[in-house]
Amino acid sequence: MTLSDAVTLRELGLRALARAGVPARHAETQIDLLLDAELRGVPSHGLLRLERIIRRIENGVIDCGSEGTHRWLGPAFLTVDGGNGLGPVVANAALDAAASRADETGIAVAAIRNSNHVGMLGWYAERMAGKGFTIIALSTSEALVHPWGARRAMIGTNPIAIGIPTGGEPFMMDMATSVVSMGEIHDHAHRKVPLQPGWALDAEGRPTTDAEAAKAGSIAPFGQAKGYALGLAFELLVASLAGAALGRDIRGTLDDIEVCNKGDVFIVIKGQQRDLQAYLADIRATEQADGSGGVLIPGERGRACRSDRLRNGVPVADEVWKKLHILAGAEAAAWRISGGV
Amino acid sequence: MTLSDAVTLRELGLRALARAGVPARHAETQIDLLLDAELRGVPSHGLLRLERIIRRIENGVIDCGSEGTHRWLGPAFLTVDGGNGLGPVVANAALDAAASRADETGIAVAAIRNSNHVGMLGWYAERMAGKGFTIIALSTSEALVHPWGARRAMIGTNPIAIGIPTGGEPFMMDMATSVVSMGEIHDHAHRKVPLQPGWALDAEGRPTTDAEAAKAGSIAPFGQAKGYALGLAFELLVASLAGAALGRDIRGTLDDIEVCNKGDVFIVIKGQQRDLQAYLADIRATEQADGSGGVLIPGERGRACRSDRLRNGVPVADEVWKKLHILAGAEAAAWRISGGV
Repeated sequence: MTLSDAVTLRELGLRALARAGVPARHAETQIDLLLDAELRGVPSHGLLRLERIIRRIENGVIDCGSEGTHRWLGPAFLTVDGGNGLGPVVANAALDAAASRADETGIAVAAIRNSNHVGMLGWYAERMAGKGFTIIALSTSEALVHPWGARRAMIGTNPIAIGIPTGGEPFMMDMATSVVSMGEIHDHAHRKVPLQPGWALDAEGRPTTDAEAAKAGSIAPFGQAKGYALGLAFELLVASLAGAALGRDIRGTLDDIEVCNKGDVFIVIKGQQRDLQAYLADIRATEQADGSGGVLIPGERGRACRSDRLRNGVPVADEVWKKLHILAGAEAAAWRISGGV
Repeated sequence: MTLSDAVTLRELGLRALARAGVPARHAETQIDLLLDAELRGVPSHGLLRLERIIRRIENGVIDCGSEGTHRWLGPAFLTVDGGNGLGPVVANAALDAAASRADETGIAVAAIRNSNHVGMLGWYAERMAGKGFTIIALSTSEALVHPWGARRAMIGTNPIAIGIPTGGEPFMMDMATSVVSMGEIHDHAHRKVPLQPGWALDAEGRPTTDAEAAKAGSIAPFGQAKGYALGLAFELLVASLAGAALGRDIRGTLDDIEVCNKGDVFIVIKGQQRDLQAYLADIRATEQADGSGGVLIPGERGRACRSDRLRNGVPVADEVWKKLHILAGAEAAAWRISGGV
C-alpha cells in the first residue's frame, strides 16, 4: 500500500487521460468518479479501472469525445445513444437533461445505450440527491450471476442506487444484486482466501469455495430467490427501456476490445421538502443486536471514509499506484519518492 | 380446506361488501384484488383480509366511497390524498391517471397517502404491464422489520413489484423486503412449526425460532444488509414522495381502528416494443443446479396456479370460508352444503 492524497491522485489520473487524448472536461468527470470510489473505500470501482479505459480508447471502442445523442420519446422520457462515450460523461449529460426536465414535469427518465462502464452508481445518486432530486439508478453488466437454482451465469450483477434528499446529508444506497462482486472473488483468489459457502459456482455449476474456480463460474444472487427476481427485473427493465443487450450477449465492461452494449437507466424525481433526519437518527440509535457490528445507515460508512481520506490520505494498492504513474507518463522515480507506508 | 370456485367466492365477497355499504364498482375492485391473491396461491393477501376491511368500514376508518383527490405537482407527478378510501380503489384511479399521462410524457409517478391496504402489488404490476407499461410499485407498512444489526422493528415489510411488457405474457415480480412475511410467522405459530434460524427476533431482540415469540418481535430483512438497505430506501422514498408516515408511526393495515397513514408510490413508464421472450426462454431452459427446485421466472408459478384454480377450483381455509358466508349474510347451510374436501 502507498498512502497518497486525493489531489495527487487526481492530477496523475488527469495526466493519464490527457495522454490518451481525452478532453480535459471529460477527463475530470471520469477521474472524479474513480477517485470518489477510492475515497469511499471501493477500490474495485476506483483507479484500478483506469488502464482498461485507456486501452479501450486506444482500441477505438471508447470515443472519449462523445457526450451522447439525446432524443426525447416524450416530454419526460429521454433516450440516449452514448456514441461509445465515456460512461460518466454520457451519464452526467443525460442526468443533467433529465433533472432539468424533472424540475418542470416532476419526474423524468433517461435510458442510455452504447455507453461505457458507468462506474459506482452511488456517485450519481448522491450528487442528484444533493441537488434535491430523488433518483433511482440502474445499470446492467456482463452475465456473472446465475439465476436462483441454475448452473450458470445469465444475469448481470445489475446494481441499483437510490438517492433521496433528507433535509440534511442526502440518503444514498448503492448495491449490486449479486451476493458479492466479481472484484471480491478476484480479490479472494489473489489473496488465496476461500470464499464463503453459497457465494459461487464453478464452471460446471457446482458450489465452490475456491475463488480460482469461481472466476470461471458464476456468482449467486444476494438473498437467494428474491435477489434473483430483482436482478432479473433490472436486466429486463434496462434492456427494454434503453434498447440494450441482455444476459450473455453483453460485452465491453470487462474487456478491452468489444463495443459496450449494456444499458443504464436513471429515474429522476423532483424531491419533496420532507425532513427525514429524525427517523434516520432513530435508526442509528436503535439498540444493536448481540454480536452485530452496529446499526448503520447505508452510504454513511463510505461518506465517513471519504472525509477521513480527504484529511489523512488515500491508501492505494502498490500495483495501482505504479500503473497510475506509468499511464501518466510520470517518472518511475516519482512514485518511488512518494513512497510506501 | 374447502374447494370452492372463483365465481362463488367473488359473489360471496361482493355480497359481504354490499352489506357493508360499499358501492358495487368499488366492491368489485376490492374483491378482484383479494380473489387474485387466492388464485395465485397467496392466501395471506386474499379473502382472509375481508373481515378487517369490513370492520374498518364499520369503524369509520375506511371511507368506501372515496377514490382519492388528485393533485398534479407537475405534468408527470400526481399526488393523491386517498381520503381513507379502499386501497385498490384509490390505487387504480391513481394508476389510470398516471398511465394516461405517461402515454403523453413517457413516464409519470403517482404518490398516494391516506389510503388503505393496497394488497398484493403484483396485481397492479401485471395489469399495467399487460397494457404495455413498465411499472415500479412500492408500498410501506407498519414497522415489522429490524434494521440489519438492530434489536427491534423500525421498517415496514416494504414490498416492491415490477411489471414489464415482454412481447408475450408480461413479466411480473412482487416481493417483500423482509425475509418472510408476518403472515408466514403467524402461519408457523398456528401450525406450531419452528421458524428457520435467522428469520426473526423476539420482543427483546434475541434470535428466535419460536413463532409465538417472533409475533411480538421483529422479522429480518431479506439478504441481510442489502435487503435492509433496500427496505429502508423504499421507506424513505415513499414517505418523502407521498407525505406518508415513517417507521413505527405507521398504523392502519394491521388493526381495525386506526386511520391508515402508510404510502404507495407507482412509477409508470410508457413501454418500449422490445421482445424479451427469447431471453426468458433461455433462462427457463438453463440447466438446473443439483438439488434445486428448477429455474423459475418470477410470477410464473402464481400465474400457473391461477390457471389451474380457475379450472379446478380454489382451496379456501375452513375458517375463511365460514367467515366469508357470515360476512355475506349467507345461510350457514350454504357453506355446509358447499362442503369440504
